[in-house]
Amino acid sequence: MIVRSRPHWLYMLFVLRGSILPKIAPQLTIISLFSIVVTALHGQILHFKVSLNFVPFSLIGLTLAIFLSFRNSTSYARYWEARTLWSQVLSASRSTARKALTLTTHPAAAKQVILYLCAFTHLLKHQLGNTRPSKLLRRFLDEKDTRRVLNAQYPASMALLLVDEWLGARLHAQEVAPPVAAAFERNLDELSTALAGCERIAENPIPFPYSIIIHRCVYLYCFWLPFGLLDAIGFMTPVIVCFVAYTFLALEALGAELENPFGQDPNDLPLRFLSWQIEGSLLEMIGEPPRTDKPGVEKHILR
Amino acid sequence: MIVRSRPHWLYMLFVLRGSILPKIAPQLTIISLFSIVVTALHGQILHFKVSLNFVPFSLIGLTLAIFLSFRNSTSYARYWEARTLWSQVLSASRSTARKALTLTTHPAAAKQVILYLCAFTHLLKHQLGNTRPSKLLRRFLDEKDTRRVLNAQYPASMALLLVDEWLGARLHAQEVAPPVAAAFERNLDELSTALAGCERIAENPIPFPYSIIIHRCVYLYCFWLPFGLLDAIGFMTPVIVCFVAYTFLALEALGAELENPFGQDPNDLPLRFLSWQIEGSLLEMIGEPPRTDKPGVEKHILR
Amino acid sequence: MIVRSRPHWLYMLFVLRGSILPKIAPQLTIISLFSIVVTALHGQILHFKVSLNFVPFSLIGLTLAIFLSFRNSTSYARYWEARTLWSQVLSASRSTARKALTLTTHPAAAKQVILYLCAFTHLLKHQLGNTRPSKLLRRFLDEKDTRRVLNAQYPASMALLLVDEWLGARLHAQEVAPPVAAAFERNLDELSTALAGCERIAENPIPFPYSIIIHRCVYLYCFWLPFGLLDAIGFMTPVIVCFVAYTFLALEALGAELENPFGQDPNDLPLRFLSWQIEGSLLEMIGEPPRTDKPGVEKHILR
Amino acid sequence: MIVRSRPHWLYMLFVLRGSILPKIAPQLTIISLFSIVVTALHGQILHFKVSLNFVPFSLIGLTLAIFLSFRNSTSYARYWEARTLWSQVLSASRSTARKALTLTTHPAAAKQVILYLCAFTHLLKHQLGNTRPSKLLRRFLDEKDTRRVLNAQYPASMALLLVDEWLGARLHAQEVAPPVAAAFERNLDELSTALAGCERIAENPIPFPYSIIIHRCVYLYCFWLPFGLLDAIGFMTPVIVCFVAYTFLALEALGAELENPFGQDPNDLPLRFLSWQIEGSLLEMIGEPPRTDKPGVEKHILR
Amino acid sequence: MIVRSRPHWLYMLFVLRGSILPKIAPQLTIISLFSIVVTALHGQILHFKVSLNFVPFSLIGLTLAIFLSFRNSTSYARYWEARTLWSQVLSASRSTARKALTLTTHPAAAKQVILYLCAFTHLLKHQLGNTRPSKLLRRFLDEKDTRRVLNAQYPASMALLLVDEWLGARLHAQEVAPPVAAAFERNLDELSTALAGCERIAENPIPFPYSIIIHRCVYLYCFWLPFGLLDAIGFMTPVIVCFVAYTFLALEALGAELENPFGQDPNDLPLRFLSWQIEGSLLEMIGEPPRTDKPGVEKHILR
Repeated sequence: MIVRSRPHWLYMLFVLRGSILPKIAPQLTIISLFSIVVTALHGQILHFKVSLNFVPFSLIGLTLAIFLSFRNSTSYARYWEARTLWSQVLSASRSTARKALTLTTHPAAAKQVILYLCAFTHLLKHQLGNTRPSKLLRRFLDEKDTRRVLNAQYPASMALLLVDEWLGARLHAQEVAPPVAAAFERNLDELSTALAGCERIAENPIPFPYSIIIHRCVYLYCFWLPFGLLDAIGFMTPVIVCFVAYTFLALEALGAELENPFGQDPNDLPLRFLSWQIEGSLLEMIGEPPRTDKPGVEKHILR
Repeated sequence: MIVRSRPHWLYMLFVLRGSILPKIAPQLTIISLFSIVVTALHGQILHFKVSLNFVPFSLIGLTLAIFLSFRNSTSYARYWEARTLWSQVLSASRSTARKALTLTTHPAAAKQVILYLCAFTHLLKHQLGNTRPSKLLRRFLDEKDTRRVLNAQYPASMALLLVDEWLGARLHAQEVAPPVAAAFERNLDELSTALAGCERIAENPIPFPYSIIIHRCVYLYCFWLPFGLLDAIGFMTPVIVCFVAYTFLALEALGAELENPFGQDPNDLPLRFLSWQIEGSLLEMIGEPPRTDKPGVEKHILR
Repeated sequence: MIVRSRPHWLYMLFVLRGSILPKIAPQLTIISLFSIVVTALHGQILHFKVSLNFVPFSLIGLTLAIFLSFRNSTSYARYWEARTLWSQVLSASRSTARKALTLTTHPAAAKQVILYLCAFTHLLKHQLGNTRPSKLLRRFLDEKDTRRVLNAQYPASMALLLVDEWLGARLHAQEVAPPVAAAFERNLDELSTALAGCERIAENPIPFPYSIIIHRCVYLYCFWLPFGLLDAIGFMTPVIVCFVAYTFLALEALGAELENPFGQDPNDLPLRFLSWQIEGSLLEMIGEPPRTDKPGVEKHILR
Repeated sequence: MIVRSRPHWLYMLFVLRGSILPKIAPQLTIISLFSIVVTALHGQILHFKVSLNFVPFSLIGLTLAIFLSFRNSTSYARYWEARTLWSQVLSASRSTARKALTLTTHPAAAKQVILYLCAFTHLLKHQLGNTRPSKLLRRFLDEKDTRRVLNAQYPASMALLLVDEWLGARLHAQEVAPPVAAAFERNLDELSTALAGCERIAENPIPFPYSIIIHRCVYLYCFWLPFGLLDAIGFMTPVIVCFVAYTFLALEALGAELENPFGQDPNDLPLRFLSWQIEGSLLEMIGEPPRTDKPGVEKHILR
Repeated sequence: MIVRSRPHWLYMLFVLRGSILPKIAPQLTIISLFSIVVTALHGQILHFKVSLNFVPFSLIGLTLAIFLSFRNSTSYARYWEARTLWSQVLSASRSTARKALTLTTHPAAAKQVILYLCAFTHLLKHQLGNTRPSKLLRRFLDEKDTRRVLNAQYPASMALLLVDEWLGARLHAQEVAPPVAAAFERNLDELSTALAGCERIAENPIPFPYSIIIHRCVYLYCFWLPFGLLDAIGFMTPVIVCFVAYTFLALEALGAELENPFGQDPNDLPLRFLSWQIEGSLLEMIGEPPRTDKPGVEKHILR
């Protein structure tokens, strides 16, 4: 979810939408109830007093915070790299389109390559989301190209081949000088790099044991915390446990969402919107409106 | 706000302007008053003693500091990347202008492309600030180009197309050799990358839940802190609470400002000044003064 | 091991596969038993009470966490850089293949270079794993080239020379214009950079003393921890020691695994799968299926 | 100041020169005296006992350390980026000179461009230091070029235009092939990027509120610390306060020095030495000694 | 020192070689003895009880850890950047050699440039180590070139000029097309960048005050620590002090070693081995063995 303007500080204390709260509500409830029970029983479980105090929690707590911070930094770095790669797709597509419109001796052919680039963008979106874009593709490609692309294992890469074929045809027809063709290729290489980068992020999450170790640490810490605080702060224990658990669980859940920025979670990248933007910016150069509909906002979330 | 020379250390302790204090004054006052009330009532609320001590605050405090630090690093990285992108606009525009003046066989045409580049810079500034630059643009573009650019959804990208059209005209008139045109294109690709990068930062803030979680954490911490300190340090509680709250609220507010470096906050990038600089540096090469006025300093803030 | 979908939070608490647990089981058992003995003997060893409490552990614990975090960040950065380099191999190979198919006047020759690129990928995999790929190579190279490559000290670099020889032949036969050949070279330089980068990561681990200092610190800390906790939390000591030791040992072991991402550990990069993917994506462009078998998943681990 | 060989560990404990101590001596003295007075009066000010203990200081201390660390990392990153940009100037100037000497058909003209590059370097140094290099410039430029450069608002950028004009003249006289001219331009673009990067660092410090918040935090912490330690460690208070204050003030002062690496502080970059080096390396290629004097070492500081 | 395979966890606890222990043995012994004396005298020095406890150490300890961590990250970053630059030398030399062998019409001339590149690598190694390679150079250069290079102030840069002269000769003899010469230049620019980067790291250490402040902090902390722990843990004090001092001194010493990765310390980069590798990989392409001897391993250290 993308929220652009900064809300009032009071509003931000109580807002629910956009918060990660719904996702961690069950766990948070269980932990809170558990800490109420522990407090009510004075830390005794089956008439057996659990001899914990705050000492181990101050040893473990910050360690946990440091690793959770590592996890969040890494997840955010993946999220931001993914966003930057889409930015690169926008920039390299625009540059290709500009060159096609101005540096070839036959600018009418530029429309074709702009449609190929739109198809590439939508194919990238679908490849990352594991969906099939058969209908949508026909707005940009003819029947033969559509089939060729849809039959491929790596459809976005195949769409780039279409662009290169267009360029080769221009080169062989001497509509573009070889050094200018080399300048085109720089942009196509950038698209190829962005594609491989997106595939890398989509296919290769953070090593699973990191998630497991931090997940376990967070939950064990939160479940044991009531015993550690009970002697020190008495009946305020559930309040503090709930507060600490909210912070840790929320940060862990957010890290897990951002780790795969191409997913369907509310805070993932709005790929439909981004590819609509790229399409719009490319078609604008030849005076055409976008051929796909502007993605709407569902439940405050831009897709 | 940009302050270049480092002031005296005593002055820095008491200076108000440039400080983020005005922005957080209301919250800080509320928290301070609350902590005075709590201290006066000896931690009792409605004759009910809140049993908190420093233990949970030492557990939570550093965790909070670590995440606030993550937030600040991320915001600052966005701010600095935005500044670097504007630096790239300066550098790539200058390189284009230099090439236009020296490597074409018809250097008189270079003035045209320099005006296009100025227009691009001002359009980028206005696009990032969501304002319309109709009057200003006419100093650089003729009527037709102005209309074409202003009608576009992505005006800065359209201005780059003007530059490419200029280059294409030079290429087709054989005023520039194809390999040199490819060298021009490297700079235009850089401008395209900088444009897409600025759009990315402007459109895609840090995921909202980060802001929410950290915001809530900071405020809850500050509001509960008086109960935690009261037993330990007695009547000094409000002083320390005010000090801690100042640090945390100020850092949080500063992070929120820098997160969107293209905004109107005092510490955001001085886009008007930066684009005036780029314009000046470009026009200087053809012996002309800048066509827009030097932005003044309002309330110590360079815009 | 690559796990793509995020499992349920309860499942993640108890899952064993994918966990790093098996690797640290012996040490963890020893430490747990030791702490049980210490607790049972009330901290006395040979009737001699060890006068430790939590003070030194709070001094050392976080220091340790900070350095362990440094180690993990560094190991992960190596892992991710290695993955990115393989992404670069994919992207640069595809770009070379696209150019060979479209920008030369004799596209039939492109098949040859695609086979060379497949050979390069598999040779890179084998060079990083210190294995010899004699049989596999014959699927892509003729007898003479196979022998030439296998006799080399740096086989992957020799395979790149084959690609360059192919390009030189095209250039001298005027099937490709010199500026286009220069564009080919950009991709080959990228492959050369990726190769040298992989060699760097494979040959140059994190300086050994870092591993030693952190390893010793972790183990000494865990073995002494029972004495530090005993007075504070009594019979809960073994539980907490086991929890802390699990976290620290697991993170240290994971850091050691990721440090060399080209090894055979479960969390290392699935090089067989990655090179099969690159081969598949390249051969797809000339309408052929991959010539090597798809690597299977052994014990939940993608190789 | 640049110290290359690592001194003995004992020497490093007591060395004064190169230390940041002189800069923070007044503040450190005041804080030390204050803490002695506080200790002597047993924490009473005007017969009023200040009820502070170590609790708030352990809450605030680490927070402070984390933000001071953020500040130092950021300042050092600016310092190192500035140094890297000067490295880029060296590298790109050398590459331009090498090309001028070998790839043009009229290598005698190369001397001219080498002199232009020397002028560019010295102009960059003077622009960053806000000084005027009229006399020095005449060693490299003729009267007309000197005046043209000195009249400019952005002199270093104007010097790059001279280099481009030289290249344009070579191109139009067909002494250099267009693709080779494009290769020259790559280096000139690098110089342009380095120039814009240096301007960015010189003009855009770390947002001022960061400096203010951290500065205030450091000083308030140090002034209140005696009250916090008095009950715990008695007459040792001034020793510890002095030690803590030394660390925090020194790191803060060093961060402030490195933040603007182009200044006149002892630890700033030795711009005079660096530009002398670049000049020497360029003139060496045409068998000439440097035309400016080697900068001396004043008070152990290399300028 | 480079250790590739990960040893057994028990072995790593006791191994001495490769450890940084020898370097810090004197200091560590002094601190240990001092702490034994302090413990024996019950913290009294000259019948004067030093009133320290753990409070100031918990305030200072983590601060110290944070700054030590900053120092280690920075030193490691320098080490790794240096290694990456040597990787770039390998990659760019290979690419130049491949091009020379395949893209010129007179491949026999390629041997000459390969010898120049070997000379460049060895000169870089010697320049960074401040030694003179007169004898070794004659294996790659004729008498005239050797003298020219050895008389230079910046020998490695002069060797690059030789490569460029070779390229210029090919270009003027029309053995290489201008666009292909431009592609050569890309690699030579990379070599030039790597050279300037290595010079930067060799000449510009981390600002000296950082080293001083952290050094002093570490030593003062370790010398005062016994007083702080004595009351809390009694006769265990020397054990803990020794453990803490080992960790801090070792990390500080390692940071100091890695800071200058081109030195002669055991953990510095094995420059002799790396340049031997580059030479081997280049000569292999023309079917020749390396002309220098493989560097041996002395005292477990690869030079």
